Amino acid sequence: MLGSILAEKRNENNKFFLFVVDNYFKGKELAKRIPVKPEDELMFIDVDPYEPTTEQIDSIRDTILKKKGLPAGVIGIGGGSIMDIAKAVSLMFTNEGSSTLYQGLNLIKKRGIYHLGVPTISGTGAECSMTAVLTGPVKKLGLKCDWTVFDQVVLDPDLLATVPQDWWFYTGMDTYIHCIESETGRFKNAFSHAYAEESLKLCKDVFINEGCGKNAENDEKLMIASLMGGLSLTYSEVGVCHALSYGLSKILGTRHCYANCLAFNHLEDYYGDSVQEFKQMLKKHNIALPQNLSKDWTDKQITDMAEVAYNLPHMWNHAIGENWKEKITIDLIKGLYERL
Amino acid sequence: MLGSILAEKRNENNKFFLFVVDNYFKGKELAKRIPVKPEDELMFIDVDPYEPTTEQIDSIRDTILKKKGLPAGVIGIGGGSIMDIAKAVSLMFTNEGSSTLYQGLNLIKKRGIYHLGVPTISGTGAECSMTAVLTGPVKKLGLKCDWTVFDQVVLDPDLLATVPQDWWFYTGMDTYIHCIESETGRFKNAFSHAYAEESLKLCKDVFINEGCGKNAENDEKLMIASLMGGLSLTYSEVGVCHALSYGLSKILGTRHCYANCLAFNHLEDYYGDSVQEFKQMLKKHNIALPQNLSKDWTDKQITDMAEVAYNLPHMWNHAIGENWKEKITIDLIKGLYERL
Repeated sequence: MLGSILAEKRNENNKFFLFVVDNYFKGKELAKRIPVKPEDELMFIDVDPYEPTTEQIDSIRDTILKKKGLPAGVIGIGGGSIMDIAKAVSLMFTNEGSSTLYQGLNLIKKRGIYHLGVPTISGTGAECSMTAVLTGPVKKLGLKCDWTVFDQVVLDPDLLATVPQDWWFYTGMDTYIHCIESETGRFKNAFSHAYAEESLKLCKDVFINEGCGKNAENDEKLMIASLMGGLSLTYSEVGVCHALSYGLSKILGTRHCYANCLAFNHLEDYYGDSVQEFKQMLKKHNIALPQNLSKDWTDKQITDMAEVAYNLPHMWNHAIGENWKEKITIDLIKGLYERL
Repeated sequence: MLGSILAEKRNENNKFFLFVVDNYFKGKELAKRIPVKPEDELMFIDVDPYEPTTEQIDSIRDTILKKKGLPAGVIGIGGGSIMDIAKAVSLMFTNEGSSTLYQGLNLIKKRGIYHLGVPTISGTGAECSMTAVLTGPVKKLGLKCDWTVFDQVVLDPDLLATVPQDWWFYTGMDTYIHCIESETGRFKNAFSHAYAEESLKLCKDVFINEGCGKNAENDEKLMIASLMGGLSLTYSEVGVCHALSYGLSKILGTRHCYANCLAFNHLEDYYGDSVQEFKQMLKKHNIALPQNLSKDWTDKQITDMAEVAYNLPHMWNHAIGENWKEKITIDLIKGLYERL
């Protein structure tokens, strides 16, 4: 359907689309099905070496503007990183200067250009969230505002068919963790709760209930779980696990969903029963997370990670309470990292 | 929060807002809290005599355009009828001619002006649906397109506090019926199912589970149930009950949610267990629906209603199947009305 959806939007601006597609699909069947016209720009992006950076976004924007001017829209086809690249580039096409200027809540000045997302792996919620998380020279923080949200999203569970088992698990756990964190904190509300409740039910069908495992029906369920988990956290907040995970990604470059799993596995003090359930899911799907990672980290690295995590006050405020600074210190966070 | 939300939008078009507010609130506390500025237009509309009509929408549009030109936006504060009036007027400000020209799917030519909804009773899903149902000289059918959807919605469960018990029940049952119909038909899918499943859970908390009844916590749940039920039907379809209900409204002027209850009560052939559960909910909340209504209707009225219902092929197609014309006849539908 993508071709017909885009046909209506082609006449905007300089009348071409920018497609940003996960490099994983280069030369694969999916790539041949992308409705690219001769005037369009198709970029395959390898998201494996690092998560999206402010420099990368600025560079894509500048390259395209110089080559062809303003596109009619940006189409992202891939996982959470590609979703975030598409969302961020759409905003940066209309907001001047470096994207580092806009990392935070409601700092973006102008509506971006049209952007549409086609997720090919489910769990991050990036297809529906109002943030595009970028790693900059100083911080890992999103361009977060109403305009970040995609104008349209195409959900096709068949696209999940070729996801490798381990990434299916890690990415799916991102939405499980979104729900657990959204539910256990002070910003929980009737809206975020309803979304988390249904998303968790779907996650359990996919990962632990009878009939669990990777198959077509569960791919469909996971796609909806991801969407609902993303909406739950959008109206509530994430917590301790995401704070630690951001530190791992910023300092060590660990991929977001995997970093979440590494951290969540050791957060029984905060998310008791859910961590037990998480361990059961690990076992059920034969996923072995590495242990004693911290013995290879320097004290400087651990301190740096703890500082990144500490500087996410909205997460601690949600998870611990307004007086979180009385309970959470850099040393306590270092202790959490040392468990890994 | 309404004042600050609207402040950002005030500079569009002729820089005033049109507020359409349920007449029920005239002189009441809520009316004093509406952030109306001197340049704005505030219309209290009595939705009791009839459901929104095409003539009414055209007249509001023409009156405002003549008096003040194009508003910055339309704000609807009220129940399903007010929501639909706000949505329809927003579209008709930019689409020429009578709204009768646009009753149907994707007939609207241009995006409407900014519109925001503040529901004060929950269940219809009009706050999130992509249709604005209007009764015209020929048909009862919505202006249905992506642009119909509100740009923003403010959900405040405190506004439900003064809803009378009977209308709380009838309107709440609209969302219950949306979910049952969305679930039992061929357009059901993983997306519509997830929304219906959670919405039904919330409806049961509000209307039948331990702790049910009208209170602040359940008002919050019903507000979310309405939203999710509306999203479920938007991505699936309604069925037999809504088809019959449209006939009752079009020919006899029966209010939508009440008409749904009258019809659903006699649809055990189609929605067996759910009709049983509905009857339990009626009993639990001491709601007595009138019986033997049809003995006061002429054959002409019954035939006219059956024709209105028959001419909603998308509902029958969903509920009965593509070959619905082999199974559903005007006479069969007349028989259903005669049960009432």
